[in-house]
Amino acid sequence: MVYIGVDLGGTNIAVGVVSETGSILAEASVKTLAERPSEEVIRDMAACAQKALNKAGLTQEDVKSIGVGVPGVADEENGVVISCTNLGWHNVPLRSEMQKYINKPVYVGNDANVAALAESYVGVSAGCSSSVMLTLGTGLGGGIVINGKAWGGSHGRGGEIGHVTLVPDGVPCTCGNNGCAERYVSATALIRMGKQECISFPDSLILKKAGSIDRINAKNVLDAAKEGDAPALRVFNTFVNYLALTINNITSFFDPEMVVLGGGVSHAGAFLLDAIRAILPRYQMFKALPIPRLELARLGNEAGIIGAALLGKN
Amino acid sequence: MVYIGVDLGGTNIAVGVVSETGSILAEASVKTLAERPSEEVIRDMAACAQKALNKAGLTQEDVKSIGVGVPGVADEENGVVISCTNLGWHNVPLRSEMQKYINKPVYVGNDANVAALAESYVGVSAGCSSSVMLTLGTGLGGGIVINGKAWGGSHGRGGEIGHVTLVPDGVPCTCGNNGCAERYVSATALIRMGKQECISFPDSLILKKAGSIDRINAKNVLDAAKEGDAPALRVFNTFVNYLALTINNITSFFDPEMVVLGGGVSHAGAFLLDAIRAILPRYQMFKALPIPRLELARLGNEAGIIGAALLGKN
Repeated sequence: MVYIGVDLGGTNIAVGVVSETGSILAEASVKTLAERPSEEVIRDMAACAQKALNKAGLTQEDVKSIGVGVPGVADEENGVVISCTNLGWHNVPLRSEMQKYINKPVYVGNDANVAALAESYVGVSAGCSSSVMLTLGTGLGGGIVINGKAWGGSHGRGGEIGHVTLVPDGVPCTCGNNGCAERYVSATALIRMGKQECISFPDSLILKKAGSIDRINAKNVLDAAKEGDAPALRVFNTFVNYLALTINNITSFFDPEMVVLGGGVSHAGAFLLDAIRAILPRYQMFKALPIPRLELARLGNEAGIIGAALLGKN
Repeated sequence: MVYIGVDLGGTNIAVGVVSETGSILAEASVKTLAERPSEEVIRDMAACAQKALNKAGLTQEDVKSIGVGVPGVADEENGVVISCTNLGWHNVPLRSEMQKYINKPVYVGNDANVAALAESYVGVSAGCSSSVMLTLGTGLGGGIVINGKAWGGSHGRGGEIGHVTLVPDGVPCTCGNNGCAERYVSATALIRMGKQECISFPDSLILKKAGSIDRINAKNVLDAAKEGDAPALRVFNTFVNYLALTINNITSFFDPEMVVLGGGVSHAGAFLLDAIRAILPRYQMFKALPIPRLELARLGNEAGIIGAALLGKN
């Protein structure tokens, strides 16, 4: 038997046929075209799943379950997407809609939780009894895994670590609150701080790499910091400091066996990891005690498909 | 069969014989005298357990297990107290030492986790699949319960919500860090802020109740606020705001079914609860979605004994 995993994004839908051991056997993808009615998006999702099954030489009879990772809040029990801001979805009955096309058990989970689940099965946190994954992208996603199960919370709000308040009365967040972690620990934060530095220091290597202030991206800032550019290093050090605070808060709150860093920003690799590891002890209470291991995610984009598929194994 | 529950405090050791259903059948207590060697404290703990058994008309043969809640960090697997600052304990082999006197399974847990466990069995959060309890005392304790089990974390550091950073670079904490939640959300915080107000506003009702600045306690501040004293209300509102931020962070991070407020400060009752409930929506993302229920603890001091005893049922 195989599992279908669906990674529903704002731009693309990626579908994979996943084996019992968490390998992707075949993939297919389709544009989301999020402005359409949700029924049409789900119909295309099902067609894409059928295409992936065909590629793998399998039929619906081989499918044990379908899992969908969504960029929003899921009612896991009822298989309903409660809210997906960037798709404009509210209370979409994903399970029942999908079952019109493929009549198998359908599971729905938050995309960051699903990525954390994938890493804990076949990625860097495999074998850990508990882990928390931070996805450092446009926003800051969080995923909690306890004893091999994704923890989505009692009302689908769990793992929203990007919206834990890091700085009371701080930078306004898209969620309506102020000072959320995601305003300080994300690609968006690197870009905002990079732009600020380039206004004061127009000789910065950041600006040379980007071409113009408007085109600064997170990679420009990280690359310039790696090359020793002072304004970029100031941004990087501020970013690392806030990320270390966030990781320390995860330790104090939940104390997982491992904290996993994923998402685009994590591609800065050892440069990022070494910097956080160096600063973490500063924040740590009980300095003599062991702390969660800190590692980079291994699965990349595949985590979305694999983790969604694994919802059916939970 | 019965369970022995031990609430180990800096001043007193309270021991109870607890039934399968979580009722205390008999109690006994003894001074901790924490400056003694830990072996002597544990010997007295065992003698006290024997005394409680005698009172209940039972013998060691009726005992299934012994649980001890400690004000510090526990290595649950090995039954070792890793660190208890206010007892001066470091790596004390509580399990093996206790078994010299009563040869039964011995469990060790953090006192705040143990109180949360008690509430989830026979207190306000009974029947909840998950809960987080905040103990508002001299410090701010946190306890996490998932599916009827206390979550102490992978290294015994879990639930230390009092040491989640609430204000980066904020008030120095006893743990060596700055801006920990416990500096803003505890009796100690109410006292500090109350004193500050009384220096500027010596006519405050806080000072009338306390007699002198040095004698201000949390109850003075809360009582003065209830009576409408303006300086006391400023302290209270600041405190409630930080407590609401902390509860909102618990929601974003973990999203339990219920958040429980215990400890001395929670005796302010509906006055406190209503104030927090009024302010919480301000911080909430996904405003249309349900949030964790917020309730006051029910068990009071007995939670320490009952919860410790229940460690053996986990």
